[in-house]
Amino acid sequence: MLRSLTKKQTMTFGRSTLPRHRLARLVSEPIPIVGGTGALGAGLALRWAKAGRPIAIGSRSAERAGEAAARIREAVPGAEVEGLLNGEAAKRAPIVFLTVPFRAQSENLNNLREALEPGQILVDCTVPLAAAVSGKATRSLGVWQGSAAQQAQEMVPDGVTVVAALHTIAAPTLADPNVELGEDVLVCGDRKQDKARVARLIEEIDGLRAVNAGPLETARIVEQLTPLLISINSRYKTHAGIRLTGLPDADHWE
Amino acid sequence: MLRSLTKKQTMTFGRSTLPRHRLARLVSEPIPIVGGTGALGAGLALRWAKAGRPIAIGSRSAERAGEAAARIREAVPGAEVEGLLNGEAAKRAPIVFLTVPFRAQSENLNNLREALEPGQILVDCTVPLAAAVSGKATRSLGVWQGSAAQQAQEMVPDGVTVVAALHTIAAPTLADPNVELGEDVLVCGDRKQDKARVARLIEEIDGLRAVNAGPLETARIVEQLTPLLISINSRYKTHAGIRLTGLPDADHWE
Repeated sequence: MLRSLTKKQTMTFGRSTLPRHRLARLVSEPIPIVGGTGALGAGLALRWAKAGRPIAIGSRSAERAGEAAARIREAVPGAEVEGLLNGEAAKRAPIVFLTVPFRAQSENLNNLREALEPGQILVDCTVPLAAAVSGKATRSLGVWQGSAAQQAQEMVPDGVTVVAALHTIAAPTLADPNVELGEDVLVCGDRKQDKARVARLIEEIDGLRAVNAGPLETARIVEQLTPLLISINSRYKTHAGIRLTGLPDADHWE
Repeated sequence: MLRSLTKKQTMTFGRSTLPRHRLARLVSEPIPIVGGTGALGAGLALRWAKAGRPIAIGSRSAERAGEAAARIREAVPGAEVEGLLNGEAAKRAPIVFLTVPFRAQSENLNNLREALEPGQILVDCTVPLAAAVSGKATRSLGVWQGSAAQQAQEMVPDGVTVVAALHTIAAPTLADPNVELGEDVLVCGDRKQDKARVARLIEEIDGLRAVNAGPLETARIVEQLTPLLISINSRYKTHAGIRLTGLPDADHWE
């Protein structure tokens, strides 16, 4: 199950040859979300479920995972959502999202060592807010490796690559299905083909555009956008997002 | 000349009472730009000149300042632009823009000690790109004080306040008068009334919206947006800017 098609691989349906990312939609690979009972994870699950994706919500508690999955199925009738222990969820598909608070990131990565296999992509959404150590959510902690994503890269098993994304999407915005999104997701990683696979998943959510923000080290900057937006949100009583101006209209990930 | 009207002060023209920022436009206080011969400074000068603002371009060389001023007058017939030594330019109005490269920031701040007076606002646009020490423009340097703007606050004379802004506006975009701007400027500073005065000037440029990004320490984050955008620009062959989504439409600075 974990073996994924490479970028160049295609499959013929009737008379048309489909590129890998179209194929992935057709076979409807699930999206595992480790920490999927949290606000960001649940919001993403809701949006992807609306887009027709099966979801594997992971939690430390199978019971809480099941409850979260039930809430999504209630909100999106017909959605395929299962609730699992994190390690089980992480085995469901090659691209795994990690949406836990920074306080729990290392613990989760330790626990995932047995579950993750070479070839998988871990999408780290962690932000080192000072709130993790009872500081302010408008400030951040210095991470020795440079960013939470680089810490994740150090901790995952060999052969697993880390992509950083989804730091600037407000959970309350995702959670309200009446809110139309219209913002960018900055994606950092060291291999363009891995970023492109993650970008395709992100862009299945209506109103999100994935932008190639550079190598994984750029997560040092992108993770800082969250405390910036939290600060702006408190001042403007909103849930702000980021949109880059001046980008060409063409598909950025071809 | 350096005494400015406070926020609450108003002046009666005929039958109408005008708030300070409207008054400032009427008396057309000039905008001093220290380092105004550089790409960012010259681009700002061009846009403000188009908006009808007098400009005082500062440079270490009066001759180069004069040449830069002549170029603006040529591009914007009737523009009031003078070219001066930096210290002279800085005395022209209460709000002074500093648009030099990080490599030259400390030297310029030392030189401005004699020129700046209590009550003035220094708008620092400096970004600590690693390019300052022959590194990459997609990476930044750690600044002991936390950000270039906080370094500036430490160096200006007592009573001068620093506001950080304009890090994400691409100089080539400003320089091309045919390009319509449509982006945000994140403004950091410790006093809202000072930020509001700077915001009013910034918003005189068509297509720029000034957003209150928080205290001066937030410049630690906002300054990092420049290497991020430089990296994105090289990948997408563009001059990207930032636009926040979800902000209310009302005037943010009332």
